[in-house]
Amino acid sequence: MPVNDLSELRRSIDNIDAALVHMLAERFRCTNAVGAYKALNGLPSVDPVREKEQITRLRELAKTSGLDPDFAEKFLSLIIRDVVRHHEAISSQQSFKP
Amino acid sequence: MPVNDLSELRRSIDNIDAALVHMLAERFRCTNAVGAYKALNGLPSVDPVREKEQITRLRELAKTSGLDPDFAEKFLSLIIRDVVRHHEAISSQQSFKP
Repeated sequence: MPVNDLSELRRSIDNIDAALVHMLAERFRCTNAVGAYKALNGLPSVDPVREKEQITRLRELAKTSGLDPDFAEKFLSLIIRDVVRHHEAISSQQSFKP
Repeated sequence: MPVNDLSELRRSIDNIDAALVHMLAERFRCTNAVGAYKALNGLPSVDPVREKEQITRLRELAKTSGLDPDFAEKFLSLIIRDVVRHHEAISSQQSFKP
């Protein structure tokens, strides 16, 4: 990619950001459904085994795609913190609790 | 989406995560090119006006897509922190500095 046009690069970045936002919105739709399922079935909000698998997998994917694996892990941690917060909110809205 | 199958939801989440990682890898390719451009042209690593525009735009996009705008902003801040770190590294590798 030529580096002689800052505004062209920024247009690509803006397009990628829009895609990321929409993908994240869809991800939270899925995790909210997981939260509802967990609350209905009395499962805990946090699943350390699943989390560990996700981190390992994402670090490997990051290496393949040329992304810093540490950044991928920080990114996933940010998401998971928010997901757990959502799950706990869903769980507290249920009449029965795990 | 039915919430009766946790493993089905998790497969969707894993697919979305793979897409996010690849999209982030591409975003860093773009920002690294921006970093090289800035270093070559003696421009500063941080651009507060551009950052403010990005935050405003991403918050709006988040609202449209059903993502929490605060989360979108946290997510962008995490990326920008890493981008600035990369830009400073690129800049310090140049024989001339801004």
